[in-house]
Amino acid sequence: MHLVEMIIRKRDGGVLSSEEIHGFVSGVTNQSLPEYQISALLMAILFQGLNSAELTALTLAMRDSGDVLDLSGIGRPKLDKHSTGGVGDKISIPLAPIVAACGLAVPMMSGRGLGHTGGTLDKLESIPGFTTPMTPDRFASQVADIGLVLAGQSETLVPADLRLYAMRDSSGTVPSIPLITSSILSKKLAEDLDALVLDVKFGSGAFISDYAAAKELAETMVSVGEGAGTPITAFLTRMDQPLGLEVGNANEIRESLATLRGTGPDDVKELTFALGAEMLILGHLASSEDEAVSQMEAAVASGSAMDVFRQVIIAQGGNPAVIEDESLLPSAEGQHEIRANASGIVTRCDAKTIGVAAVRLGGGRQAKADTIDPAVGITLAAKLGDKVEKEDLLATVAWTVPDKLEDALQILPGAWSFGDSHDHLPLIVEKIS
Amino acid sequence: MHLVEMIIRKRDGGVLSSEEIHGFVSGVTNQSLPEYQISALLMAILFQGLNSAELTALTLAMRDSGDVLDLSGIGRPKLDKHSTGGVGDKISIPLAPIVAACGLAVPMMSGRGLGHTGGTLDKLESIPGFTTPMTPDRFASQVADIGLVLAGQSETLVPADLRLYAMRDSSGTVPSIPLITSSILSKKLAEDLDALVLDVKFGSGAFISDYAAAKELAETMVSVGEGAGTPITAFLTRMDQPLGLEVGNANEIRESLATLRGTGPDDVKELTFALGAEMLILGHLASSEDEAVSQMEAAVASGSAMDVFRQVIIAQGGNPAVIEDESLLPSAEGQHEIRANASGIVTRCDAKTIGVAAVRLGGGRQAKADTIDPAVGITLAAKLGDKVEKEDLLATVAWTVPDKLEDALQILPGAWSFGDSHDHLPLIVEKIS
Repeated sequence: MHLVEMIIRKRDGGVLSSEEIHGFVSGVTNQSLPEYQISALLMAILFQGLNSAELTALTLAMRDSGDVLDLSGIGRPKLDKHSTGGVGDKISIPLAPIVAACGLAVPMMSGRGLGHTGGTLDKLESIPGFTTPMTPDRFASQVADIGLVLAGQSETLVPADLRLYAMRDSSGTVPSIPLITSSILSKKLAEDLDALVLDVKFGSGAFISDYAAAKELAETMVSVGEGAGTPITAFLTRMDQPLGLEVGNANEIRESLATLRGTGPDDVKELTFALGAEMLILGHLASSEDEAVSQMEAAVASGSAMDVFRQVIIAQGGNPAVIEDESLLPSAEGQHEIRANASGIVTRCDAKTIGVAAVRLGGGRQAKADTIDPAVGITLAAKLGDKVEKEDLLATVAWTVPDKLEDALQILPGAWSFGDSHDHLPLIVEKIS
Repeated sequence: MHLVEMIIRKRDGGVLSSEEIHGFVSGVTNQSLPEYQISALLMAILFQGLNSAELTALTLAMRDSGDVLDLSGIGRPKLDKHSTGGVGDKISIPLAPIVAACGLAVPMMSGRGLGHTGGTLDKLESIPGFTTPMTPDRFASQVADIGLVLAGQSETLVPADLRLYAMRDSSGTVPSIPLITSSILSKKLAEDLDALVLDVKFGSGAFISDYAAAKELAETMVSVGEGAGTPITAFLTRMDQPLGLEVGNANEIRESLATLRGTGPDDVKELTFALGAEMLILGHLASSEDEAVSQMEAAVASGSAMDVFRQVIIAQGGNPAVIEDESLLPSAEGQHEIRANASGIVTRCDAKTIGVAAVRLGGGRQAKADTIDPAVGITLAAKLGDKVEKEDLLATVAWTVPDKLEDALQILPGAWSFGDSHDHLPLIVEKIS
């Protein structure tokens, strides 16, 4: 494997062999390759792309760079869901217990907040005592026992991605569809899944705002799934305004609990059930969306979905009493109201602005070493299409540090615009499989 | 200066500010920037290019990264010539003494052989005792005393280029017109020149074979000269066959001495006088090409050009007796003749093949640590347009190591092709200023 030759060939639009790609990934993993050659190849890939065979080889080589789970003895269909990230996107937290209660095994490894978006791990850790690091053995046994794990990514799972991602972040090579695809799918395929459902977001609060680019990413991921022998369905969903009414870590746990009780907001339920139905169908537990939705409605109504979540909280060290007593979750004494400065229909409720404001409050990290304040958050009172009068409540901000509140308030009121009318656009735009 | 932001902006086709470019070059020079970010920016520049202001800023920042010569007290016009490299290209060696004898100061820093091309320094070092390293002080005083220095590049002159070039070589970022331009011109502009003449070669034996690409390079270099306030004239010249009849280090010194005596081959004289005339005109020592050529003819005929070369040899530690007694130059006992396998007109006398054969003989380096064998070389007996009969002599190979001869002979006879006719194409195709 001659890395300079690979760089030159890719730079000139040529094709890398599977052997070359495996050699590259193994050199990244064992740190034997010069970093300036790695970043030069990543930049050449950003400009020239990877064909389907190259991308499948890269994804599988990355998957195999560390531990790969073996869940072959589980006896249930093994499915997972992954979102490309948004604001207020707590969908995994109600979704995973619901589909596990319907019979799936969900070996879910999630991430932390990135930029203006929240992370499932950060949200779960607002449950007192809840821990997300896990050894592969404990991971496998919890999947077998409960049907669900909500864990962090192990350091020994896809170490190539840990190294490449850190380098991409500081070499301007993040927004490359093949590099995003291999990063996401190498980790998901290491979970030994039977199939995967993806929520690919576009709009102001997504990392890819453009619909066409998000669709290209979705199609690319579905195609790599085919190449790797793991069926993937990707949903393209709108992320112009936050999902649900709650943004922030403890805030989103509260809304997730409500959704598990059947009392969550309509958009959270709509997306949870759409993604869940596809998971049940791919797992051959339902033959139609209607059948799948009935199963999920029953799991919520009977409390069996909440019971799975309770078992996961207990297994992962958390206090399950939060389910009955939400005052056990972190909360902030400071409450600040944002009120409308005009009357009209809400024509904009900007996800990115609200996400950045939540980070500024302390709900996300501005630098890698920052710690999360789980108690802060934003509760929305007005979303797209709502009619408001001047001085009506738009949102309530839960805050703990006055300077951080001030910092958030510099942008938060600007998240809303008002007009005469608003055309409702569907949340779920397309399904690709 | 935020390097990641610079990478991202350039990657997306944006423009870097002069401050950012100076910060980048100073971080390269003092080694404070991560190499993987440097190579990522170089690759982004390769794809997106640099505009004229960016490229001038880069070139000047590189020039100023180390010592910049101060030759302000010289009292003569300071001119230099640079070639992008070819086979048999010994032009600098007769040219510089001729124009110095006509009144120019020539503070020339040359390079070593690269790939299949020879280097002026390697050729000069075949003169017994001749040395090319030089301190800035000694360099300046020799320019003042003799009007000519034939030195190597000092390590303290443009250190940014030493670092960037090494990284480009191993990160696939060599063939970028702005990066080539800044590398060449930063070094030339550090020589404190009044003007510069460039020989930009295209064809099989050049690094850029394509005419259009060579022309773009020439135009880019002329434009950066304008931005830097140093007039540059670039000649586009053909490098399909070697220049002259001699390829190899001592071989080319012999042909250079012949040219200084007025008995060199026509093509070597044509190019030497064309480049020299432009230097004299840019230096305001001649007002027309005819006038400049008369001055150069006189300098050769009177022996004053040879006398300047003699003084340089003495000043740089070499044995000037080689001028009268060429047997003092290294020579090889082994002489192998290549003869024609067919009759006809020579339609191809491939510079690249002959250059690679000369390297294989030991006349160039295949690895950086290789030492040059100054005695080996190839003397051509048949060039483009010559009529040969079967078994006529095509070339004589001077060799010292049997294995190396064998290695060279695997390709050398294939350098010639024969046909019914050959259209003469001009050596000098275009002049850009």
